[in-house]
Amino acid sequence: MKFEIESIGTVYNKRKEVVDDFWGDTISEIRLHDHLPEEALDGIETFSHAEVLFVFDKVTDPIVWGSVHPRGNTNWPKVGIFVQRKKNRPNLIGATICEIVKREGRSLWVKMLDAIDETPVIDIKPVWQGFLPKKEVKEPKWSKELMTDYWK
Amino acid sequence: MKFEIESIGTVYNKRKEVVDDFWGDTISEIRLHDHLPEEALDGIETFSHAEVLFVFDKVTDPIVWGSVHPRGNTNWPKVGIFVQRKKNRPNLIGATICEIVKREGRSLWVKMLDAIDETPVIDIKPVWQGFLPKKEVKEPKWSKELMTDYWK
Repeated sequence: MKFEIESIGTVYNKRKEVVDDFWGDTISEIRLHDHLPEEALDGIETFSHAEVLFVFDKVTDPIVWGSVHPRGNTNWPKVGIFVQRKKNRPNLIGATICEIVKREGRSLWVKMLDAIDETPVIDIKPVWQGFLPKKEVKEPKWSKELMTDYWK
Repeated sequence: MKFEIESIGTVYNKRKEVVDDFWGDTISEIRLHDHLPEEALDGIETFSHAEVLFVFDKVTDPIVWGSVHPRGNTNWPKVGIFVQRKKNRPNLIGATICEIVKREGRSLWVKMLDAIDETPVIDIKPVWQGFLPKKEVKEPKWSKELMTDYWK
């Protein structure tokens, strides 16, 4: 089944290139498009975190449909695309939980958003404790290793 | 900016109606479409949780673009659509962190997925500790109240 989606805003920040890692000091402005009323963000400052859904629209690498070594690192196991957070995935959608910094009018500033400048945003959802994992989160060694420099 | 997305799988479970609450005992099968190789799920059993992105394709209520009282409850403040997890939102996309139950071939079974039977799935992402909130998650009273019966 196919669906059409339309961006609801745009990311503005200092990251201009499609590169992994070192997102720790990036602060991003998400500015709503003019076809959305400013009140779509009303009340967001009563939450500490929001999940931002966005489109990896600058990706030029071929889409991975099967399984590959994460970041091409053969020290890590070959795993399926739905077991990775890789950009060049079917539907090119990213989803990242961010820290809310401030809201002004039709703009929301966030930390911990790993999307580059001018990335189209397709949704913003508040983070509620009730939707976070209740049981312990388990993951293999490779995904912990991959994150070593991510938020530095 | 407009984008076309295509479902990568379908949800199968016992929930046939679009209703809120009481998702606690629902186990869902997500079956990949035939155009995806089965290996797209390889390694997913090494993670405890996965985030499932899906389309609220059965929603018939008008899309909310501005702000409304959550669930129409006037005891709760009027807040923007991007401050709610409401279904009838721009782009009709849901994103829920689920517990992985098992994987068999091109099917993944999960708990805590709040999507009804035959919902189109557009992405599955493994949950890594490195992408969960580092700081304390704060939310207002109303969103906690709204969740009272959600996972029962």
